[in-house]
Amino acid sequence: MSDKRPPDFDDRFRDDLAHLFEWRRDVRRFLADPVDLDLIEGLLAQACLSPSVGNSQPWRFVLVEDKAKRAAIRANFLRENAAALEDYENERRRQYTKLKLAGLDKAPVHLAVFADRSTARGHGLGRRTMPEMLEYSAVAAVNTLWLAARAHGIGVGWVSIIDPQAVRETLAVPDDWRLIAYLCIGYPEAPHREPELQRAGWQDRGHLKDFLFRR
Amino acid sequence: MSDKRPPDFDDRFRDDLAHLFEWRRDVRRFLADPVDLDLIEGLLAQACLSPSVGNSQPWRFVLVEDKAKRAAIRANFLRENAAALEDYENERRRQYTKLKLAGLDKAPVHLAVFADRSTARGHGLGRRTMPEMLEYSAVAAVNTLWLAARAHGIGVGWVSIIDPQAVRETLAVPDDWRLIAYLCIGYPEAPHREPELQRAGWQDRGHLKDFLFRR
Repeated sequence: MSDKRPPDFDDRFRDDLAHLFEWRRDVRRFLADPVDLDLIEGLLAQACLSPSVGNSQPWRFVLVEDKAKRAAIRANFLRENAAALEDYENERRRQYTKLKLAGLDKAPVHLAVFADRSTARGHGLGRRTMPEMLEYSAVAAVNTLWLAARAHGIGVGWVSIIDPQAVRETLAVPDDWRLIAYLCIGYPEAPHREPELQRAGWQDRGHLKDFLFRR
Repeated sequence: MSDKRPPDFDDRFRDDLAHLFEWRRDVRRFLADPVDLDLIEGLLAQACLSPSVGNSQPWRFVLVEDKAKRAAIRANFLRENAAALEDYENERRRQYTKLKLAGLDKAPVHLAVFADRSTARGHGLGRRTMPEMLEYSAVAAVNTLWLAARAHGIGVGWVSIIDPQAVRETLAVPDDWRLIAYLCIGYPEAPHREPELQRAGWQDRGHLKDFLFRR
């Protein structure tokens, strides 16, 4: 990371990068194997190279190691997942009950990512008309972390079926921190090219023509 | 992209990926050289491999090609940038006036990215307690696009000093689309390892220890 010459990326790198995007996956099935803390810190250091509004670097990473706190997070998920099931009926409901939507039980690393809405870094630049840019900057860090992890064969799963306010209270973080993501991190049971929700028949992928418009 | 065998990433790829993160940059100084539309579409196809809540794929990409629309966007930025200047005094104000905060004048490609809040894709999964996950999914797509572009030597700049409602009106997009990012895309004047706001003395970078906590 100390090379100051501009990189000259080649086709081989671009092909590998395309494979990284293609094989990333939201992982919910983990092996119990531990992940080295130095490696996690290396991945987080890469996440800190993500774009942030005004260079505000609002990302705050909380490694959740305490067993009681992990159990509280897991109970939070189970409660909200049961509540979410009530939104579905008939075949969709049957499908929902079969989905595995979090790997909180087995993932060796739990990481909560927050955006610090009170940070002085960046001096407010770029946030006047779009204050949500602070949260978006923390999201970019999650995405960077995810890709860096996958390049090491490490899987990440983003749990959003969770009460964010209760997570904040469980982890006793400052009032101005907003929960962006609760991540399960560890070595996956198996690599996959297709999203788990696609394989389970919940939602397939669209094509670029569905998403691209011209004006 | 058709290789179905799981990739086995090596140290060389991981080193290159680290350089990609390190040399990404928010670019505001572009060459006028055009970018091939096929290449842009290839980058957007990669962005569509980003994580999305419930596999909802809420990203909507709008290529802004019309000269009058581009001029309206540029006027929007100039208006909001003048208003933002009023938030600063003394030395900060002098510094702000010297910053180049957008490349709307010269970038050959303008791309607006929206999140479609009304999408049926994903069937609401994962959005009950954190409805903002839709926007966050579109942010992930922006970050993926940015990295894919940089691997081709193409720079991206994210303009957030802009009235998002006025952008929606200028581009005549559906009411349920929320503006996530207005991006300038093109070949940069020069590669840089340090963020422009750091080089300009506006905001330097913190260290991981400032951002990492344990519970």
